[in-house]
This record gives sequence, C-alpha cells and structure tokens, in this order.
Amino acid sequence: MSSLTATNSQTRPESDWPGHRLVVEEPLRLDCGVDFGPFTIAYQTYGTLNADRSNAVLICHALSGDQYAAEPHPITGHDGWWTTLVRPGGVLDTERYFLICANVLGGCMGTTGPKDINPETGEPWALSFPVITIHDMVRAQKLLVEHLGIDTLFCVIGGSMGAMQVLQWVASYPDSVFAAVPIAGSARHSAQNIAFHEVGRQAIIADPGWCGGRYLSLGRKPARGLAVARMAAHITYLSEAALHRKFGRNLQDRNAVTYGFDADFQVESYLRHQGSTFVDRFDANSYLYITRAMDYFDLAAEHGGSLPAAFAGAKSRFCVISFTSDWLFPTSESRALVHALNAVAANVSFVEVETDKGHDAFLLHEPEFFATLRGFLAGCAEHRGLSWPG
Amino acid sequence: MSSLTATNSQTRPESDWPGHRLVVEEPLRLDCGVDFGPFTIAYQTYGTLNADRSNAVLICHALSGDQYAAEPHPITGHDGWWTTLVRPGGVLDTERYFLICANVLGGCMGTTGPKDINPETGEPWALSFPVITIHDMVRAQKLLVEHLGIDTLFCVIGGSMGAMQVLQWVASYPDSVFAAVPIAGSARHSAQNIAFHEVGRQAIIADPGWCGGRYLSLGRKPARGLAVARMAAHITYLSEAALHRKFGRNLQDRNAVTYGFDADFQVESYLRHQGSTFVDRFDANSYLYITRAMDYFDLAAEHGGSLPAAFAGAKSRFCVISFTSDWLFPTSESRALVHALNAVAANVSFVEVETDKGHDAFLLHEPEFFATLRGFLAGCAEHRGLSWPG
Repeated sequence: MSSLTATNSQTRPESDWPGHRLVVEEPLRLDCGVDFGPFTIAYQTYGTLNADRSNAVLICHALSGDQYAAEPHPITGHDGWWTTLVRPGGVLDTERYFLICANVLGGCMGTTGPKDINPETGEPWALSFPVITIHDMVRAQKLLVEHLGIDTLFCVIGGSMGAMQVLQWVASYPDSVFAAVPIAGSARHSAQNIAFHEVGRQAIIADPGWCGGRYLSLGRKPARGLAVARMAAHITYLSEAALHRKFGRNLQDRNAVTYGFDADFQVESYLRHQGSTFVDRFDANSYLYITRAMDYFDLAAEHGGSLPAAFAGAKSRFCVISFTSDWLFPTSESRALVHALNAVAANVSFVEVETDKGHDAFLLHEPEFFATLRGFLAGCAEHRGLSWPG
Repeated sequence: MSSLTATNSQTRPESDWPGHRLVVEEPLRLDCGVDFGPFTIAYQTYGTLNADRSNAVLICHALSGDQYAAEPHPITGHDGWWTTLVRPGGVLDTERYFLICANVLGGCMGTTGPKDINPETGEPWALSFPVITIHDMVRAQKLLVEHLGIDTLFCVIGGSMGAMQVLQWVASYPDSVFAAVPIAGSARHSAQNIAFHEVGRQAIIADPGWCGGRYLSLGRKPARGLAVARMAAHITYLSEAALHRKFGRNLQDRNAVTYGFDADFQVESYLRHQGSTFVDRFDANSYLYITRAMDYFDLAAEHGGSLPAAFAGAKSRFCVISFTSDWLFPTSESRALVHALNAVAANVSFVEVETDKGHDAFLLHEPEFFATLRGFLAGCAEHRGLSWPG
C-alpha cells in the first residue's frame, strides 16, 4: 500500500534565500500580552519607490504563502505565488508601483516563527513561541512600512488570510491606507473554517513525529500529519465544479480500478502530491500558529461587537472582491463586510467574480478579476495623483 | 496541550450483542473476482412479516451506521440511528411493516469485515480482506432477503451510502423492489467526495498505530488517525449554516480565548468529541474498506456509461429526496438521478426538502421529509394492496 511520503527538496540553506531582513530590536506588545523581540521580518520588494513615497503597495500573503510573490520560491523553485498579477505591465505593475511583501510573524520563511531559535534557551521556540494574531502580523508590517519611510500606503491588498490583514490595516491605521483590496476574505473566521483548521491541527498533533512540538530539537518531523492537514485544506480551496472538471472520476495511469488502496483516482494522486510537497517547504508548528491566528480573527469583537465600528475612521477606498464558487470564504462574508462599510459611508466597490475555480481563484488567471482590479487601481492612482510616463 | 484521546467504552462483548446472524456457507463472487465465504450477516428486524410476505422494508445504512436502526446501540448505548422514523406509529411503522436492517459486508458490527478472523490464517483479515463494493454489499443483502423468504421487498430505503445501495438494488434486482427511496444520495461518488475520503484514509494510514493494517494482531489501535478521519468527515455532514447556528464562534467553558491550542471554540470541542467517541465503536480498517466501496460506486459505469441503462428494467416506484443545504450529496446529484429515471419513464417523485441541517438531515427530525415519506409510502402501500386494521 502506498501512502504519504515526503521528499526533502530543501537543499538551499535559509541563509542563502534571497531578500531583505529587518531586525526589530524594540519588543512588540502582542495581543497575548507578551512583549516579543527582538525579531526579524523577511520581505521582498519589487519596483521602485517614487520620490513622494506615494506608490507603495503592501501585499499580504495567505496561510501557506510567503514573501516570494513574484519570483521563484527558494525551496521549490516554482514561480512566485502572485506572478499572475505582480510583473512588469501586470495589474500590480512593477514598473509603476513599489510592491512590498513580508513573511508574516509566526511564519517559516525568514520572519521569526516557531522554528527559529529562542535566544533564552538556544532551542527552537516550538510551542514556547507566543500565539500571534492577525493584528500582531499587521503591527509587525507597520514597523516595516515605517522603516521603509512610508507614511501612507497607496494600497494594501491580499486574498484569504491576506484579506484579513487588509481589513486589520484599515481598522488599526486608517490614515495609512489609501486603497484597500480584501479578496476572498472575511471580517471573522467562520465556525466551519475553524473546524477545518482544527482537523488540520489535530492531524499534525496526532503525528508522533510532532513530539509535543519539539520535533526540530529531536531531529524528527511530523511530515505525514502536516501532509494530511494540507490535503484536507486543499479540498476547501477548490470548488466541487473545479475538482470535477480537473479530475472527475478519472483514473491515474490505469484502465480500471485496482480493488485496493493505491491512488486509483487522479484526485487522490493529486491530493497526495499536494500533501507531500507541502511538507518540504512549510513548518508544521507555523501551520498551527498561523491557522490559530486566522481562527482568532474577529474584527467586530475587537470593536465592541460592531463591525461598522471597526471602520468608523476609515478613509480608504475599498474594492471588495469575492468569487461565486468560493465556499471557504463565500460571497456572503464579503457582503457582510460591504454592509458594514456602507454603514459608515465608506467608499466601496464590490465585485463578485463569476468563476468555477473556488477560493484559489485569487491565485489564478481570472480575466474578470484582473479587469476589476486594474480599473480600481487606475481610478485610485488618479485620485492619489500618481502618474507615469506613457 | 490537549489532543484527541480515546476512551474505550467497548465493554460489552460482541458475542453478547443483540440480533440475528445468518451464516452464508456458499462463497459469494465479489466484484474484485474473489469467491468469498463462508461469511456472516448480522441483522436486526422490527415488526412482523405478514402472511403474503409483502410488507418487508429493507433499510440500508450509511458509512458509519449499522444494523441497530431502532434500538440502543450495544457499544454506545445511544438510541438507534433511525428511531426518528422506525418506531410504532412512525413513518416506518413497526406495527405495519417488517423492517430489516443488516450490517454491510466489510462492516464491524457483526457482519464479516476486516476485523474478523481469516480462517485460513487464524489472524484478523486486516488488509487481506477483499476490497468490496456497494454491489457486493447488495449481493449479500439479497441472500439475506431470500433467506427470509421474501421475493419482493415492499421498499428499499436508505440515506447517503444507503441511497447507493437502494439504487444498486433497483439496477440489480428490478423485480424485487416495489418502492425505492434513495435519500441524499448519488449514482456515482464525486471527485470532491473521493477527495474527502482519501484524506480520512491517509489520516488512518499515517497513524503508526495502524501498523500496515495489522493493529489488531499487534494489540495496537490507530485511534488518533481514525478520530481525525471522523472529524474531517463530520464537517462535511453538516452545513455551514448549521455549524454557525449550533456553535458560531462561541467559546467552550471560558470567557476569552486562551492564546493556545486548547479547544477554545465550542466547534473544536464538539469535533474532538465526535472523533474520540467514534473510535470506540468503529474499526479503522472497516472505515478504509467502506469509504473505498463508496468511492468505487458509479452505477452508469456498470452499464456502459449510461445511467438510464442502469434503470432500463426498473419497475419500482421511486421517491428521490435531497436536502437544500446538503453540500456532500447536493440536490444536483439527485436531479441527475431523476433525469436518468425519467429517461426510462420510471415512476418518480422528487422532493428537495428545505432545511439548513446539511447532509445529516436524513437522520434528524425534519417534518417536511417525514411528511413526504409518509405520503409516498401510503400511496405505495395502497398500490401494493397492503392494508391494516384501523
């Protein structure tokens, strides 16, 4: 019987990963009450900051994303996760904007997270790493943006967990965001989504290789648990229609079922591949921490239970985007957000893009999505007084 | 950090479980080509077979169900899984019908399955048990029905995997089914559903307690893997609305989040409970085999790719029932089935019941579902010439 096995392709040492590092010396007060620091923020930039420092776009990544939005990933070698948008002449045009993308606090691609060394013990943080929140991630990003000398970001944009960060930016720093684009997001994580995350966490924790979180110190790895977590999550990123269109009941390299537990169906083979490749590039404890941050996200709760109150001071122009076949962050979540923004007379565009690609549509080639975003950014650029030759 | 732990409440020995046993001596030719037998069918009956032997109803159970449809479960002590319907005066009235419910082939509640002893080795079958199909389950049921002296079943009824068996009955034994009620079912398992099953199987297989399937011989148990599988599956049985209504983002026995990985949210606590109690009553290898049988189910493929061809000889009256919020076996699946039945001019009623309870609605108190079923059965009873005093 075949099963999940991990190939370890992580041959390039982290010290050799491309990109910038900001070391924040002053401790940061986290939501959990811990004063955390010093810590490192790993980030990438694309394009050039203009003289007015008015063309900066902050890209916020999703759960399994990182700062390599528009260049090959240092572990997998695959294209950056948002090269569909971030490129010369692209919707997020590297010839017009100064684009910043930072690995989130608690991540595993250079920004300090549970796999890094706790200076007090000389061992990886593991579960002694403080539980972080979306708000904490955004606090760290704000320090980075200030370090780069930027008062007001032209745009903060992101999908899924990235959208949560966009909303937190507007709520926490209303004067610092000219335009906000939360894509396939929500102002609070739903019960169903918490449930799926809990399944993933339990799959990791149930793996004896997890060792109470101390796997790095012990030379172990909860590879199979993390792979199962990724498999379960991956189903939620696609629509039923997309799975049907891509795979249906097609068999994998065979003409008939084998009456066994091998991956007879293409969809099984695909999921196993998604699971086993994920463990090469992602840290299991980071997966626990980042899913927890998403679960805890509830912007209304931070504001006395009122979502409009979260946006009371918002001056940004909003473009809220959802996808018809996204059942993880369905349009109803974006609509609730738009209602709250309307309740404080915010400047809001709302577009539900027709697609059968599910939640992952924000990462894919979606012409209607691209056209919406291009139009919105062009309008905002005009209002912001940005102009480019040609 | 708390995690999934199993309490073992299986104190009542299997030899003491109530109910009937039929030992089939003659080997049964399975779809995989194996001649399997002798084997045992464990079943329960409720009510009395009439003199004409015309009031028999076969109840087909779902993936995690068993033959204890209308009486306390011998392991958990909980009410039977269909006491909502099967009781005196109920929709499946034990004072009118002779109701039969058998544990499926490959199951773990008395019918021969992978946890039973392979007489050739003296060890539990484990993975040497042949892979079975929905068709094989139905073949075994047919032997039971013949043993009971019944030529034509008044009704074959079941939800989810039970609905698959109903459809297989009609396709395989068109003369033996007067009325057929497939509820929340499908004529073939979808890519998304195969994907969810594969996640569950990989969670079990990844558990070192699984031991290549030989856990019973080795005194082990893949309890945590099976619990994770059940947790993932359980989410799919509920609707997003039902999860939101039941739990929302409510916290479990606390006033604020703990900034940790305990079950802060009620939905987490609920899922962990679902996972850990399931392992007390269900065999992990049975879970592998039964999910595989569902994955393989594709009634059209058995009939040259044509679903109408599967029903070409059907004489039954059909009542196809789906639930609006069921996203695991959505109404579109039932509609495809109805189209195929219409294409062969079958006698079909189709009702989509409005409910927010998701796939599990077929197990719950749903007045519109009950009324539909009561009316359909009354009409069929009249056509069948069944009558009762009063």
